[in-house]
Amino acid sequence: MKLVFSKSNLSKAVNIVMKAVPTRTTMAILECILIDATTNVIKFTANDMELGIETIVEGEIIEKGKVAIDAKIFSEIVRKLPDNDITIETDSNNTSHITCEKSNFNIAGKSGEDFSYLPVVIKDKSISLSQFTLKETINQTIFSIAMNDNNKMMTGELFEVSENNLKVVGLDGHRIAIRNVALEGKADDVKVVVPGKTLVEISKILSSDAESMVNVYFTNNHILFEFENTMVVSRLIEGDYFKINQMLSNDYETKVIINKKEFLDSIDRANLLIKEGDKKPIIINITDGSLEINVTSAIGSSKEDIDISKEGKDIMIGFNPKFLIDALRVIDDESVNIYLVNPKAPCFIKDKDESYTYLILPVNFSA
Amino acid sequence: MKLVFSKSNLSKAVNIVMKAVPTRTTMAILECILIDATTNVIKFTANDMELGIETIVEGEIIEKGKVAIDAKIFSEIVRKLPDNDITIETDSNNTSHITCEKSNFNIAGKSGEDFSYLPVVIKDKSISLSQFTLKETINQTIFSIAMNDNNKMMTGELFEVSENNLKVVGLDGHRIAIRNVALEGKADDVKVVVPGKTLVEISKILSSDAESMVNVYFTNNHILFEFENTMVVSRLIEGDYFKINQMLSNDYETKVIINKKEFLDSIDRANLLIKEGDKKPIIINITDGSLEINVTSAIGSSKEDIDISKEGKDIMIGFNPKFLIDALRVIDDESVNIYLVNPKAPCFIKDKDESYTYLILPVNFSA
Repeated sequence: MKLVFSKSNLSKAVNIVMKAVPTRTTMAILECILIDATTNVIKFTANDMELGIETIVEGEIIEKGKVAIDAKIFSEIVRKLPDNDITIETDSNNTSHITCEKSNFNIAGKSGEDFSYLPVVIKDKSISLSQFTLKETINQTIFSIAMNDNNKMMTGELFEVSENNLKVVGLDGHRIAIRNVALEGKADDVKVVVPGKTLVEISKILSSDAESMVNVYFTNNHILFEFENTMVVSRLIEGDYFKINQMLSNDYETKVIINKKEFLDSIDRANLLIKEGDKKPIIINITDGSLEINVTSAIGSSKEDIDISKEGKDIMIGFNPKFLIDALRVIDDESVNIYLVNPKAPCFIKDKDESYTYLILPVNFSA
Repeated sequence: MKLVFSKSNLSKAVNIVMKAVPTRTTMAILECILIDATTNVIKFTANDMELGIETIVEGEIIEKGKVAIDAKIFSEIVRKLPDNDITIETDSNNTSHITCEKSNFNIAGKSGEDFSYLPVVIKDKSISLSQFTLKETINQTIFSIAMNDNNKMMTGELFEVSENNLKVVGLDGHRIAIRNVALEGKADDVKVVVPGKTLVEISKILSSDAESMVNVYFTNNHILFEFENTMVVSRLIEGDYFKINQMLSNDYETKVIINKKEFLDSIDRANLLIKEGDKKPIIINITDGSLEINVTSAIGSSKEDIDISKEGKDIMIGFNPKFLIDALRVIDDESVNIYLVNPKAPCFIKDKDESYTYLILPVNFSA
């Protein structure tokens, strides 16, 4: 095999497929990028058996062939080479010769035959949206999923399409994040749970360009994202997602309209007095026209009040400040609406159209 | 005590004195910043008993007094407060009330009486140079000192002034970095060893402005840096520094003139094949007109050559790539001169005027 790339094309492709290279694995072949130039196009593939990425790279095929190269060292070499044409040539032992200007590297490669290709996904059900929208929607919900594997279903996000609306849901038992996106064109109804890791990685590859589209295909076991020259395939999490509708409610006793930045900054400051691992809540006291944030901890105490517009009852309620900060950070609106029932019931931050809903459970506190 | 500051003045002063707050200590009082407004000026002080910093802060004294406040939480609060006037008020228990707009913090303080003031340094011997020059000179040598305490003298840098020349030297047993700076005005002859930690911290505080000066005062036990409203006092390392003159030599068998960026980039790439902790050298083969860099490791091999101008014998010599990278990174010249004797003898990178000299010991290799 002998291929020639521009540094920028090679670099871009390597960075894309690197997202599917596992950091720790017992199978050395999975730590590789497969370079496949057996046909008339050059394809790079990485696959950790749950998430796989394939991208077509612009380059010149001087001699056809394929090889699997250690992804980490290959990406580092590509990054540090001069900005010029880079040639990759393999010999019969799969040793890969990488040359650029006067620089020559020889790296042991592996036979491309040992590499697991991506599963073939039947393009039956699909939706289409802008890369920017998908990237945003993931970033606006993904922080709500559970980090540990105790409950597999909580480590993924629900992707539910019905009536040309995509609903994305993440939850961890203490909070729920929901985003709704109106879809254009034909959108098939689906309901699947996508692994959080897949979504984190794909959100890094998606462009922030509102004009470029991504097509998403669904089967019973897989989700496939297709955009530009890249395909990302992931297994789905099997099983039924939580029945979230029964956790949501439109009833409230208190409604608050508050400036988002002021609220976020105040909580951020109050959070200074709470050490990580410390389970101290912040206490929010809502009265007519005023929301007061109080914290008392071993470090000290703080008090701050913000002007608000309020409907309904006064209420005093405790929260884990991190949950409020996470939700407020991803809301773009200048002011937010908060709906409360009582100090034991969840609070809702949502807009009028419910394009977003953040449910946060309160925590007990001793007044 | 009651003081009012602008956020920017307060923030700047806290960031300066924070550099002398130890990260780990058994004496809680050392983790504090002393705020002293007993006279007509407001002084902030931090002191880890080896390094002490005092700075005068612009602000309004409404009621005189002093208090010691935990530096970490105080600096975090100041950083997150709105950009407006900040009031600090203490009560009889040393509790400090920090207020800004609608934000109120109460933090336990300590009596200022328990705080150790900086030692008084007699301003006898002194030199004066620009903050920029001192900052640069430290950064261009400090990487050569030893990190661990096995040999205390190697953890500091020699500051030697004679005939209006400041020579700064750092060494770790494998390499030596020397910078010479011409001083203007009256400069007293001195020869002291300054702890590396002091120099690292002061280089962070010094401005990059070539117009602002710093006065440096020396006693037998202390060094004092004075600039703008700030004083930095540090203990010196006691004892005689290494006799470096007998390690230096102007004899050579081979002289190479090489483009600095090409050389640095090539070594940087070759270094990709050397894992940290791996003692593999890079092997440099110098012949007429060409310098070839070779590496062979468990990961693979690389070869790269660079056009050079050469005088004297051909030579093949091995180096720890990190030592070459460290020295080349801080040299501003477009091309550098390298002087070599044989594969066992130190190599020198230096300019014609010897404003800098980097000595690097070679390492053995099997050809």
